[in-house]
Amino acid sequence: MRRVGLIGTGLVGGSIGLALRRAGVEVRGFDHDAGRLEAAVAAGAIDDGTTSITDVVADADVVVVAVPVGQLATTVVAALDADAAVVTDVGSVKAPVVREVQAARPARAPRFVGGHPMAGSEQDGITGADADLFTGATWVLTPTDHTEVSAFTSVRTFVGLLGAEVLAVEPEQHDALVAMVSHVPQLAATTLMDVAATRGAEHATLLRLAAGGFRDMTRIAAGHPSIWPDICVANRDAIVAALDEYRDALDAVRALVDTQDRGGLLEVLERARAARRSLPRGLDADEALAELRVPIPDRPGSLAEVTTLAGTIGVNIADVEIAHSSEGGGGVLVLVVAARHADAFIGALSARGYHPARTELP
Amino acid sequence: MRRVGLIGTGLVGGSIGLALRRAGVEVRGFDHDAGRLEAAVAAGAIDDGTTSITDVVADADVVVVAVPVGQLATTVVAALDADAAVVTDVGSVKAPVVREVQAARPARAPRFVGGHPMAGSEQDGITGADADLFTGATWVLTPTDHTEVSAFTSVRTFVGLLGAEVLAVEPEQHDALVAMVSHVPQLAATTLMDVAATRGAEHATLLRLAAGGFRDMTRIAAGHPSIWPDICVANRDAIVAALDEYRDALDAVRALVDTQDRGGLLEVLERARAARRSLPRGLDADEALAELRVPIPDRPGSLAEVTTLAGTIGVNIADVEIAHSSEGGGGVLVLVVAARHADAFIGALSARGYHPARTELP
Repeated sequence: MRRVGLIGTGLVGGSIGLALRRAGVEVRGFDHDAGRLEAAVAAGAIDDGTTSITDVVADADVVVVAVPVGQLATTVVAALDADAAVVTDVGSVKAPVVREVQAARPARAPRFVGGHPMAGSEQDGITGADADLFTGATWVLTPTDHTEVSAFTSVRTFVGLLGAEVLAVEPEQHDALVAMVSHVPQLAATTLMDVAATRGAEHATLLRLAAGGFRDMTRIAAGHPSIWPDICVANRDAIVAALDEYRDALDAVRALVDTQDRGGLLEVLERARAARRSLPRGLDADEALAELRVPIPDRPGSLAEVTTLAGTIGVNIADVEIAHSSEGGGGVLVLVVAARHADAFIGALSARGYHPARTELP
Repeated sequence: MRRVGLIGTGLVGGSIGLALRRAGVEVRGFDHDAGRLEAAVAAGAIDDGTTSITDVVADADVVVVAVPVGQLATTVVAALDADAAVVTDVGSVKAPVVREVQAARPARAPRFVGGHPMAGSEQDGITGADADLFTGATWVLTPTDHTEVSAFTSVRTFVGLLGAEVLAVEPEQHDALVAMVSHVPQLAATTLMDVAATRGAEHATLLRLAAGGFRDMTRIAAGHPSIWPDICVANRDAIVAALDEYRDALDAVRALVDTQDRGGLLEVLERARAARRSLPRGLDADEALAELRVPIPDRPGSLAEVTTLAGTIGVNIADVEIAHSSEGGGGVLVLVVAARHADAFIGALSARGYHPARTELP
């Protein structure tokens, strides 16, 4: 990977630029506002800037769209229209973008791979950018039946340069999952902070009592609010469903408190504690890896099926490439995953009629 | 302060012992279990241990009760019965304990001052103890109309040795406030973690998507669960009321999402952000202080009234002592607070008929 085109130089775009340049990749930035491009150059996030979409796309191995959720689809389409080789984005909601790009440009959409890095910061703008923001993070990619394998492997290489790991998930599933694990937590933290802060007469005393737990829990409420209305609009149905699920669970806990059911409370607390303590982390640097060679038929959709199958069982993809089958017809998808996950993944693939072969990596 | 008696050597008791010994105070520990006393000596949290309540109380300037919420009142009474000079506790719920001690031992209860350090850790037991756990923390004290001034000043000195600041609050108000700022956040984090973890088929993928915000928000769910059923039982009414308030606010946010009300969402998000960013911190080491001399009549309850008035407006008490009035009858309560809070506090005192005099401290 030699050059990346970067559309948008805020917190996420700026962090991508810093990390890519550290990895020796040339980064050209695009913005309508020349002042912001200057700031990004000064911050070291881009090598140079342009206000021309043709310019930022030219010669770029991958074009990364890092603009607000409401502008994602039109910006991706503009990059495809300017003949970008491969386009990806970093938006927090995926299905509407993927659907809109597919509908608007069916012939070019296979060169677009939706993406969403699961990392953030309560900072904002280029001044909050951090080359290590994505180190060890999970980076969701949402390939579809139309996605070109070469586009997917280019984007995976790009993600790897940032120190993140790929988890392939279907766009709709991504949106349902992040509603629970990102959007509802944001709204829950915001609401808790707001209720505590608007308690009127007791205000100052209440906030003095806010110890570490409360501070931890409301930290994300300090982030920049402007991205959230767009996200809530784009992902409304999934957020409402997840909020309802959360509220039902809160009601159940309220009933346990009200009836002074110590045993019931302890059960919930212990289950949650065990889950919190076993939150998965990323691959260790020295983790043993396994290579799986999966013959795939020469039809669209195999890439998405195989990679999102890994995602469905929570398996990160450390590397992926396509090899030509010596037997002609179709090809071989070569996937690298953590060795401890390989058996589960092989089982899932076999159940779908694939015949993966496993090789340990040194 | 020469010697402190410490009843209970878990996370909080152990941390108190470590901090006191670092400050040059002798600490004698009490436990029914000799093995736990040995562990506390080995950890450096106590100088020596005893299984006799008479022994731990003898010669102690202050006796600190750091046992589970359900055993607080009986343990405080036992210490008073053994003729402790001054007793305080560190329980998360205050009104039931204060009421029970007052009812059981009306003559000795003035030597007891309820307390609650607003600091914790997801660690537990003596192995999680940390001499810096209370540095900069707010430590609630709940004096009543019966509290002896000398008992209050002894406990404040003890709190000061731990690097924490005193906020005086009425017991019932404390319980209502911590329901919102500690107990509901614990239950909300636990519930969120539990809902996310029990999503069944999507489980592994969901948890891989848990980025920093989700991790921050659920961190307290990793703490030891065993203390919470007692707290929920002891503080049931306040917790149920605060949970209802939180749920109503969540419902309002859900309606904003459902109706795609960007403006309404932004308003809540911005209000919460501003509140989160302005969470008060403790006194700075180099903060300017003011001394207020408040003549108080010679009647019980003046101490509680003056100090909890400070708490009500969110003012920490950096120091407090009683001076004899040269004019005879009553005395002068000498309080040290942050200079920037002095005017608000003087205003509140004047409105209640007190006549405070202010002196800047160098």
